[in-house]
Amino acid sequence: MSLQISSVAVPSFLRTLEALSKILDKASAYCAAKKIDPAVMLQMRLAPDMFPLIKQVQLACDFAKNTIGRLTGEPPKFPDEEKTFDDLKARIAKTIDYVKSVTAEAIDASTDEDVTFPVGPEKKMTLKGEQYLVGFALPNFYFHATTTYDILRHSGVELGKRDFLGWTG
Amino acid sequence: MSLQISSVAVPSFLRTLEALSKILDKASAYCAAKKIDPAVMLQMRLAPDMFPLIKQVQLACDFAKNTIGRLTGEPPKFPDEEKTFDDLKARIAKTIDYVKSVTAEAIDASTDEDVTFPVGPEKKMTLKGEQYLVGFALPNFYFHATTTYDILRHSGVELGKRDFLGWTG
Repeated sequence: MSLQISSVAVPSFLRTLEALSKILDKASAYCAAKKIDPAVMLQMRLAPDMFPLIKQVQLACDFAKNTIGRLTGEPPKFPDEEKTFDDLKARIAKTIDYVKSVTAEAIDASTDEDVTFPVGPEKKMTLKGEQYLVGFALPNFYFHATTTYDILRHSGVELGKRDFLGWTG
Repeated sequence: MSLQISSVAVPSFLRTLEALSKILDKASAYCAAKKIDPAVMLQMRLAPDMFPLIKQVQLACDFAKNTIGRLTGEPPKFPDEEKTFDDLKARIAKTIDYVKSVTAEAIDASTDEDVTFPVGPEKKMTLKGEQYLVGFALPNFYFHATTTYDILRHSGVELGKRDFLGWTG
């Protein structure tokens, strides 16, 4: 009748990060087929004051990494040094490895514990682990994952919601 | 150390639906200020083969309503008859009322029960309540909520992620 915070967080992050990696494969193949410079595609954005594709992927990775890290201690820092689709895929793979490296027990121990996290460059917020995950981490994670998909769809890459959901069947 | 399926589902849906309603207020005000026909804005889309704004909002509502409904029995049907921003706001309000009308006990009883739901026009899928919520309902719900935001940002409406997260402070 009850569930664990780890069984909400970990499958959500892993499934969507794995889906994003395959979406980037399709984006890279689309660039090759249409003779689009991948560096241009990585800088596509939906509005001048929104983040470009590359930053959306970095942020999706960071919301997964930082959520697991803050629930269990201090998250590792992954510098934003990616320049290519392959770099971004490596960032996703590194994030997946990190999420998998943390035990469910460590994550679940934080359910009722305070988690303090930055919101914007200066402010900090404190929530219980459960509220941090449900009310902050998941909406932010899905926000950047969906916007990655939306930028690519807007740029002509042939994707469907099945790709976003990670359905390969 | 453990949490309930209702405390994952209900706050996720309510917070984001309430945020979407306020986002639609800003979109409506933007249309008035810029002399944009709201009917045109409601048909904006990011790609010719993606759903327009109005359908994104209807789908976000439906993933909330159908999730709560399928976890606890049979969801009510809300016909897609909206034509204006006010209509969409009423749809959101009706969805919020429905989500609030279901007891946490009824939702939580479904955690380990089979939930059968349509995927596309012909197929059906069966998952346990927990997997249905975490692996299907939440990613789909956030997908359509984020795409609503992305369409409006792409169309010039001044919004920030605070609006998406429902932060009014």
